Amino acid sequence: MDEPTTHNPQTAGQIDEVLQKIEKTRQARRHKFYLRDEKITLSHGSGGKSSHNLIEGVFAPAFSNPLLDAMDDSATFNIVGTNPRLAFTTDTYVVSPLFFPGGDIGRLAVHGTINDLVTSGAQPLYLSAGFILEEGFPIADLRKIVGSMAESAKEAGVFVVTGDTKVVQRGKADGVFINTAGVGLAHPTWQPGQNRLQAGDKVLLSGPIGDHGIAIMLAREALEIETEVQSDTAPLHTLVAALFAAVGDSIHCLKDPTRGGVATTLNEMALSSDVAIALDEHAIPVHSEVRGACEILGLDPLTIANEGKMLVIVSGEKADEALAAMRKHPLGRETAIIGSVQSSPEGMVFLRTDIGGMRVLDMLVGDPLPRIC
Amino acid sequence: MDEPTTHNPQTAGQIDEVLQKIEKTRQARRHKFYLRDEKITLSHGSGGKSSHNLIEGVFAPAFSNPLLDAMDDSATFNIVGTNPRLAFTTDTYVVSPLFFPGGDIGRLAVHGTINDLVTSGAQPLYLSAGFILEEGFPIADLRKIVGSMAESAKEAGVFVVTGDTKVVQRGKADGVFINTAGVGLAHPTWQPGQNRLQAGDKVLLSGPIGDHGIAIMLAREALEIETEVQSDTAPLHTLVAALFAAVGDSIHCLKDPTRGGVATTLNEMALSSDVAIALDEHAIPVHSEVRGACEILGLDPLTIANEGKMLVIVSGEKADEALAAMRKHPLGRETAIIGSVQSSPEGMVFLRTDIGGMRVLDMLVGDPLPRIC
Repeated sequence: MDEPTTHNPQTAGQIDEVLQKIEKTRQARRHKFYLRDEKITLSHGSGGKSSHNLIEGVFAPAFSNPLLDAMDDSATFNIVGTNPRLAFTTDTYVVSPLFFPGGDIGRLAVHGTINDLVTSGAQPLYLSAGFILEEGFPIADLRKIVGSMAESAKEAGVFVVTGDTKVVQRGKADGVFINTAGVGLAHPTWQPGQNRLQAGDKVLLSGPIGDHGIAIMLAREALEIETEVQSDTAPLHTLVAALFAAVGDSIHCLKDPTRGGVATTLNEMALSSDVAIALDEHAIPVHSEVRGACEILGLDPLTIANEGKMLVIVSGEKADEALAAMRKHPLGRETAIIGSVQSSPEGMVFLRTDIGGMRVLDMLVGDPLPRIC
Repeated sequence: MDEPTTHNPQTAGQIDEVLQKIEKTRQARRHKFYLRDEKITLSHGSGGKSSHNLIEGVFAPAFSNPLLDAMDDSATFNIVGTNPRLAFTTDTYVVSPLFFPGGDIGRLAVHGTINDLVTSGAQPLYLSAGFILEEGFPIADLRKIVGSMAESAKEAGVFVVTGDTKVVQRGKADGVFINTAGVGLAHPTWQPGQNRLQAGDKVLLSGPIGDHGIAIMLAREALEIETEVQSDTAPLHTLVAALFAAVGDSIHCLKDPTRGGVATTLNEMALSSDVAIALDEHAIPVHSEVRGACEILGLDPLTIANEGKMLVIVSGEKADEALAAMRKHPLGRETAIIGSVQSSPEGMVFLRTDIGGMRVLDMLVGDPLPRIC
């Protein structure tokens, strides 16, 4: 870490000073995504800063093309002529443990890829499923996982239409890894994207954060913390459909804050759109059990993964309508307006803390919770 | 194994007897794809009989829908109205070693998915790439693999438009695993498929078999066999385009004989179309180095994986034109007509051997070469 991440200034002068520091940092960040490492570390899979370094240092330059370079969760394109527009996405799931409170790797693999299509404004249609199985894996467990996938797909009205299975020797994988790619029908004209944020937009969050990450963490560590925390894994296509019905293309960006959490996801948007995002800490919903577990474990809920929440960036004048529409939906009852978009300092996210201070909210650095999804 | 696989009858009476046995076996096979195993074994990843048992016992019933049930290499569907038809496929690559004579996991991951689209008569357009990386994997190796993928994609005119990277702890994977899913533009009317074989069709094979499997085997085992065998990994879209230009929808089925080899692939077709396939052993091209290595290793070239060959089933009257068209293409110079389709015994593949006998050619049983692709 070569930049400050926490400040608690109390006066206007101090705030100015912070803003100057921020501006300096921002300049530095522009050229920051390069890869110093010689070997893969767990933090390259965190979804945070190291992941970005890996993507920008290896994948993006090799594969560069206009569709990939947008770096949204799905690529959208026209196949022939101008319509239909399609969305295409992929995600691999390596979560450990495979079964956890509120779900399993199968539900996650279906919901995650549905949500990646939804964030592009697409209607999810078809999924592929690629399995890597470890020799010795119990077929009864595989049946449970596949059953979960089938059930989740049915609930969401999508179909698994093509698949593949590979097996590797004992000790060369960890039970089962699943890749799901997805194809969806994109909206003919509306195209939300992380480069579409504008000053004056509001930031909505569909409910309390950190449930998935903490549920996994507690399942994994068998800590003696007694909680009822369950993964929030859920498909968000009907929530977004209800939202779109209410405010249409006033929705500028949708993103599910999975790996890296709300902090990382908003940083990606701010960088991509060259804007600043200011959050109000007190407005961000967090279940008390999650907050408690985070305090004990030394984690920030803003960097913890969610699997059934949506961040929505909507134009300021439509924010209240969007809020009302989301709150009417079972998966959005606790939706809150948590912040707003401003023109500068470009590429930065900051948090007005409960105690009246301000701190820069950076992407996740390191990986406190490897294999969260 | 509960059925005979080899016969060397010399008289008409003996052949009749064999045909009766075949008929009995065929009846038994109809109900044979069930899963007795409690744990995953390497042979569930062979692409052969155990893989089919796993697919029919776990995946197919859970996910059943008309697109999946066709069990072709890609699913094809219309997104809106009647056009365009799309093809969608997925494949995961776990080959070991990652680098081998003639290619690496990156080239394989691009070529394999292109070829799965091509077998559906589709023009490959877009790929996704999902990586599972093991902690400690050298980034220099990752750069080489990603460079190979980018080069292969460019050569074939396809684009990697979306991706994902996960990292697992040391000892929980084996260097790198790659999933590529692919989207292609299917032909509006022509739809080759493994259920479309008809009596009188001819079986064409685009060149010598077994190169990929043997190259991997020799690279892996570091046997003291000195050969020049290289993987045949190649994208076959231009070969198929040339073939289609010559004979159009007289092409009833295309399939690249990867895992399980020519024997398994043709068995799948025979079962799906309720026909028999008769092969002439002497007509099947095999490089002498591959034949020699197979003899030493006790392997049958007909069950060894290929990554740049195509099996083409074409109506009898167009077979010579198809042969000529394929031979004109650099990747089809050694194309041969290796057999024909007949109406019975349904679901069976047999081989007229060089010594004048006949043997039932079954799917691959067990897995002599795990992690071949």
